[in-house]
Amino acid sequence: MDPRCIPERYFNLGVGEVVVHRNAGGNVRHALRDIGIVEELFHVAELAIVHHTDCGTLAFTEDQVRGGVKARVAREHWADVDRITFGANADLVESVKGDVAWVRAHPLISDRLKQGCQGFVFDIKTGEIEKVNV
Amino acid sequence: MDPRCIPERYFNLGVGEVVVHRNAGGNVRHALRDIGIVEELFHVAELAIVHHTDCGTLAFTEDQVRGGVKARVAREHWADVDRITFGANADLVESVKGDVAWVRAHPLISDRLKQGCQGFVFDIKTGEIEKVNV
Repeated sequence: MDPRCIPERYFNLGVGEVVVHRNAGGNVRHALRDIGIVEELFHVAELAIVHHTDCGTLAFTEDQVRGGVKARVAREHWADVDRITFGANADLVESVKGDVAWVRAHPLISDRLKQGCQGFVFDIKTGEIEKVNV
Repeated sequence: MDPRCIPERYFNLGVGEVVVHRNAGGNVRHALRDIGIVEELFHVAELAIVHHTDCGTLAFTEDQVRGGVKARVAREHWADVDRITFGANADLVESVKGDVAWVRAHPLISDRLKQGCQGFVFDIKTGEIEKVNV
Protein backbone atom coordinates (compact mmCIF):
# COMPACT_ATOMS: atom_id res chain seq x y z
CA MET A 1 0.00 0.00 0.00
CA ASP A 2 3.05 2.23 0.43
CA PRO A 3 2.87 5.44 -1.61
CA ARG A 4 6.44 4.87 -2.79
CA CYS A 5 5.56 1.58 -4.48
CA ILE A 6 4.08 0.93 -7.91
CA PRO A 7 3.81 -2.86 -8.18
CA GLU A 8 3.65 -2.82 -11.99
CA ARG A 9 7.20 -1.48 -11.99
CA TYR A 10 8.68 -4.28 -9.88
CA PHE A 11 9.15 -6.61 -12.81
CA ASN A 12 9.21 -4.02 -15.58
CA LEU A 13 5.62 -4.89 -16.42
CA GLY A 14 3.16 -2.59 -18.12
CA VAL A 15 -0.54 -1.94 -17.90
CA GLY A 16 -2.44 -5.12 -18.68
CA GLU A 17 0.31 -7.53 -17.75
CA VAL A 18 -0.35 -8.22 -14.08
CA VAL A 19 -3.24 -8.63 -11.65
CA VAL A 20 -2.37 -6.75 -8.45
CA HIS A 21 -3.63 -7.19 -4.92
CA ARG A 22 -2.24 -4.65 -2.45
CA ASN A 23 -2.65 -4.62 1.31
CA ALA A 24 -0.77 -3.49 4.39
CA GLY A 25 2.35 -5.61 4.71
CA GLY A 26 1.73 -7.35 1.40
CA ASN A 27 0.32 -10.19 3.48
CA VAL A 28 -0.94 -12.96 1.21
CA ARG A 29 -3.22 -14.38 3.92
CA HIS A 30 -5.63 -11.53 3.22
CA ALA A 31 -5.73 -12.32 -0.50
CA LEU A 32 -7.29 -15.79 -0.44
CA ARG A 33 -10.64 -14.55 -1.76
CA ASP A 34 -8.86 -12.70 -4.56
CA ILE A 35 -6.69 -15.71 -5.44
CA GLY A 36 -9.81 -17.87 -5.65
CA ILE A 37 -11.44 -15.43 -8.07
CA VAL A 38 -8.35 -15.05 -10.24
CA GLU A 39 -7.88 -18.81 -10.43
CA GLU A 40 -11.47 -19.22 -11.59
CA LEU A 41 -11.54 -16.36 -14.11
CA PHE A 42 -8.09 -16.60 -15.64
CA HIS A 43 -5.35 -19.09 -16.37
CA VAL A 44 -2.80 -17.94 -13.81
CA ALA A 45 0.41 -19.86 -13.25
CA GLU A 46 2.57 -17.35 -11.35
CA LEU A 47 2.12 -15.67 -8.00
CA ALA A 48 4.73 -13.16 -6.84
CA ILE A 49 4.60 -12.14 -3.19
CA VAL A 50 6.48 -8.88 -2.71
CA HIS A 51 7.15 -7.13 0.58
CA HIS A 52 9.19 -3.91 0.60
CA THR A 53 11.86 -2.36 2.78
CA ASP A 54 10.85 0.38 5.23
CA CYS A 55 7.34 -1.14 5.36
CA GLY A 56 4.93 0.44 7.82
CA THR A 57 4.20 -2.94 9.38
CA LEU A 58 7.81 -3.00 10.64
CA ALA A 59 7.19 0.27 12.49
CA PHE A 60 4.34 -0.66 14.81
CA THR A 61 3.30 -3.34 17.26
CA GLU A 62 -0.12 -4.98 17.44
CA ASP A 63 -0.69 -3.36 20.83
CA GLN A 64 0.20 0.08 19.49
CA VAL A 65 -2.35 0.00 16.67
CA ARG A 66 -5.01 -1.66 18.83
CA GLY A 67 -4.45 0.92 21.54
CA GLY A 68 -4.64 3.77 19.05
CA VAL A 69 -7.90 2.57 17.57
CA LYS A 70 -9.39 1.88 21.00
CA ALA A 71 -8.48 5.38 22.16
CA ARG A 72 -10.92 6.89 19.68
CA VAL A 73 -13.77 4.34 19.73
CA ALA A 74 -16.38 3.53 22.35
CA ARG A 75 -15.52 0.76 24.79
CA GLU A 76 -18.35 -1.41 23.44
CA HIS A 77 -16.30 -1.84 20.23
CA TRP A 78 -13.00 -2.81 21.88
CA ALA A 79 -13.69 -6.52 21.46
CA ASP A 80 -14.02 -5.93 17.69
CA VAL A 81 -10.63 -4.21 17.71
CA ASP A 82 -9.08 -7.14 19.57
CA ARG A 83 -10.34 -9.52 16.90
CA ILE A 84 -8.29 -7.75 14.19
CA THR A 85 -4.73 -8.90 13.57
CA PHE A 86 -3.08 -5.81 12.11
CA GLY A 87 0.02 -7.71 11.02
CA ALA A 88 2.94 -6.08 12.78
CA ASN A 89 6.13 -7.46 11.33
CA ALA A 90 9.63 -7.99 12.70
CA ASP A 91 11.61 -9.43 9.79
CA LEU A 92 10.99 -8.77 6.12
CA VAL A 93 12.64 -11.89 4.70
CA GLU A 94 10.97 -14.12 7.27
CA SER A 95 7.57 -12.61 6.49
CA VAL A 96 8.05 -13.33 2.77
CA LYS A 97 9.13 -16.91 3.55
CA GLY A 98 6.10 -17.34 5.81
CA ASP A 99 3.75 -16.11 3.09
CA VAL A 100 5.20 -18.43 0.44
CA ALA A 101 4.97 -21.36 2.87
CA TRP A 102 1.36 -20.43 3.61
CA VAL A 103 0.47 -20.50 -0.11
CA ARG A 104 2.26 -23.80 -0.70
CA ALA A 105 0.38 -25.42 2.19
CA HIS A 106 -3.06 -23.98 1.49
CA PRO A 107 -5.67 -26.56 0.42
CA LEU A 108 -7.75 -24.03 -1.58
CA ILE A 109 -4.88 -22.87 -3.82
CA SER A 110 -4.13 -24.90 -6.94
CA ASP A 111 -0.96 -26.98 -7.30
CA ARG A 112 -0.12 -24.97 -10.41
CA LEU A 113 -0.13 -21.68 -8.50
CA LYS A 114 1.71 -23.21 -5.57
CA GLN A 115 4.49 -24.27 -7.92
CA GLY A 116 4.52 -20.82 -9.51
CA CYS A 117 4.65 -18.97 -6.19
CA GLN A 118 7.80 -17.01 -5.41
CA GLY A 119 8.72 -14.42 -2.83
CA PHE A 120 10.60 -11.14 -3.26
CA VAL A 121 11.79 -8.08 -1.37
CA PHE A 122 11.55 -4.71 -3.08
CA ASP A 123 14.14 -2.19 -1.94
CA ILE A 124 12.50 1.24 -1.71
CA LYS A 125 15.85 3.05 -1.86
CA THR A 126 17.50 1.28 -4.78
CA GLY A 127 14.40 0.25 -6.74
CA GLU A 128 15.86 -3.26 -6.98
CA ILE A 129 13.85 -6.41 -6.40
CA GLU A 130 15.48 -9.48 -4.91
CA LYS A 131 14.21 -13.04 -4.86
CA VAL A 132 13.93 -14.68 -1.45
CA ASN A 133 15.22 -18.24 -1.26
CA VAL A 134 12.64 -20.30 0.56
CA MET B 1 -6.81 -5.73 -9.13
CA ASP B 2 -7.61 -5.42 -12.83
CA PRO B 3 -4.50 -5.34 -15.05
CA ARG B 4 -5.94 -2.39 -16.95
CA CYS B 5 -6.04 -0.17 -13.85
CA ILE B 6 -3.28 1.90 -12.26
CA PRO B 7 -4.92 3.56 -9.25
CA GLU B 8 -2.29 6.29 -9.04
CA ARG B 9 -3.52 7.56 -12.39
CA TYR B 10 -7.17 7.92 -11.36
CA PHE B 11 -6.67 11.33 -9.83
CA ASN B 12 -3.51 12.33 -11.71
CA LEU B 13 -1.45 11.48 -8.66
CA GLY B 14 2.18 10.48 -8.70
CA VAL B 15 4.37 8.15 -6.70
CA GLY B 16 4.30 9.10 -3.05
CA GLU B 17 0.95 10.85 -3.09
CA VAL B 18 -1.49 8.08 -2.27
CA VAL B 19 -1.76 4.94 -0.13
CA VAL B 20 -3.39 2.21 -2.22
CA HIS B 21 -5.29 -0.88 -1.17
CA ARG B 22 -6.37 -3.09 -4.07
CA ASN B 23 -8.63 -6.11 -3.95
CA ALA B 24 -11.12 -7.93 -6.15
CA GLY B 25 -14.10 -5.66 -6.67
CA GLY B 26 -12.46 -2.76 -4.82
CA ASN B 27 -14.56 -3.85 -1.86
CA VAL B 28 -13.77 -1.63 1.13
CA ARG B 29 -15.07 -4.21 3.61
CA HIS B 30 -11.83 -6.14 3.11
CA ALA B 31 -9.71 -3.07 3.90
CA LEU B 32 -10.69 -2.48 7.52
CA ARG B 33 -7.37 -3.73 8.87
CA ASP B 34 -5.52 -1.50 6.39
CA ILE B 35 -7.64 1.53 7.23
CA GLY B 36 -6.92 1.00 10.94
CA ILE B 37 -3.18 0.93 10.28
CA VAL B 38 -3.22 3.99 8.03
CA GLU B 39 -5.28 5.96 10.53
CA GLU B 40 -2.77 5.14 13.26
CA LEU B 41 0.42 5.78 11.27
CA PHE B 42 -0.55 8.81 9.20
CA HIS B 43 -2.83 11.82 9.24
CA VAL B 44 -5.33 10.73 6.61
CA ALA B 45 -8.42 12.76 5.86
CA GLU B 46 -9.57 11.42 2.51
CA LEU B 47 -10.70 7.97 1.43
CA ALA B 48 -11.60 7.38 -2.21
CA ILE B 49 -13.43 4.16 -3.02
CA VAL B 50 -13.09 3.39 -6.72
CA HIS B 51 -14.74 0.55 -8.58
CA HIS B 52 -14.22 0.21 -12.34
CA THR B 53 -16.31 -0.70 -15.35
CA ASP B 54 -15.99 -4.22 -16.81
CA CYS B 55 -14.97 -5.46 -13.36
CA GLY B 56 -14.47 -9.20 -13.02
CA THR B 57 -16.85 -9.31 -10.06
CA LEU B 58 -19.67 -8.38 -12.47
CA ALA B 59 -18.88 -11.45 -14.55
CA PHE B 60 -19.34 -14.26 -12.04
CA THR B 61 -21.80 -15.49 -9.46
CA GLU B 62 -20.91 -16.71 -5.97
CA ASP B 63 -22.03 -20.22 -6.92
CA GLN B 64 -19.84 -20.22 -10.01
CA VAL B 65 -16.62 -19.38 -8.16
CA ARG B 66 -17.48 -21.66 -5.24
CA GLY B 67 -18.25 -24.48 -7.63
CA GLY B 68 -15.03 -23.93 -9.55
CA VAL B 69 -12.89 -24.00 -6.42
CA LYS B 70 -14.73 -27.04 -5.04
CA ALA B 71 -14.18 -28.90 -8.32
CA ARG B 72 -10.44 -28.94 -7.71
CA VAL B 73 -10.23 -29.36 -3.90
CA ALA B 74 -10.98 -32.30 -1.66
CA ARG B 75 -14.50 -32.51 -0.25
CA GLU B 76 -13.19 -32.06 3.29
CA HIS B 77 -12.39 -28.41 2.36
CA TRP B 78 -15.76 -27.56 0.84
CA ALA B 79 -17.02 -26.03 4.07
CA ASP B 80 -14.04 -23.62 3.99
CA VAL B 81 -14.99 -22.61 0.45
CA ASP B 82 -18.59 -21.98 1.53
CA ARG B 83 -17.35 -19.61 4.24
CA ILE B 84 -15.74 -17.29 1.66
CA THR B 85 -17.86 -14.52 0.17
CA PHE B 86 -16.18 -13.89 -3.18
CA GLY B 87 -18.12 -10.69 -3.77
CA ALA B 88 -20.04 -11.18 -6.99
CA ASN B 89 -21.50 -7.87 -8.02
CA ALA B 90 -24.59 -6.88 -9.99
CA ASP B 91 -24.47 -3.07 -10.16
CA LEU B 92 -21.35 -0.92 -10.10
CA VAL B 93 -22.91 2.30 -8.82
CA GLU B 94 -24.86 0.46 -6.14
CA SER B 95 -21.73 -1.34 -4.98
CA VAL B 96 -19.88 1.98 -4.63
CA LYS B 97 -22.82 3.46 -2.71
CA GLY B 98 -22.90 0.42 -0.45
CA ASP B 99 -19.18 0.72 0.29
CA VAL B 100 -19.41 4.42 1.15
CA ALA B 101 -22.40 3.73 3.41
CA TRP B 102 -20.46 0.93 5.10
CA VAL B 103 -17.54 3.28 5.86
CA ARG B 104 -19.82 6.04 7.16
CA ALA B 105 -21.56 3.60 9.51
CA HIS B 106 -18.48 1.74 10.75
CA PRO B 107 -17.68 2.28 14.44
CA LEU B 108 -13.92 1.63 14.01
CA ILE B 109 -13.39 4.28 11.33
CA SER B 110 -12.76 7.87 12.44
CA ASP B 111 -15.30 10.63 11.89
CA ARG B 112 -12.65 12.53 9.92
CA LEU B 113 -12.23 9.72 7.43
CA LYS B 114 -15.98 9.13 7.25
CA GLN B 115 -16.45 12.76 6.27
CA GLY B 116 -13.64 12.50 3.75
CA CYS B 117 -14.98 9.32 2.16
CA GLN B 118 -16.20 9.52 -1.43
CA GLY B 119 -17.08 6.97 -4.08
CA PHE B 120 -16.12 6.87 -7.75
CA VAL B 121 -16.45 4.78 -10.88
CA PHE B 122 -13.45 4.51 -13.20
CA ASP B 123 -14.32 3.93 -16.84
CA ILE B 124 -11.83 1.45 -18.31
CA LYS B 125 -12.62 2.52 -21.87
CA THR B 126 -12.46 6.30 -21.56
CA GLY B 127 -10.02 6.61 -18.64
CA GLU B 128 -12.45 9.02 -16.99
CA ILE B 129 -13.35 8.90 -13.32
CA GLU B 130 -16.82 9.91 -12.17
CA LYS B 131 -18.00 10.72 -8.68
CA VAL B 132 -20.96 8.73 -7.39
CA ASN B 133 -23.60 10.76 -5.59
CA VAL B 134 -24.48 8.94 -2.40
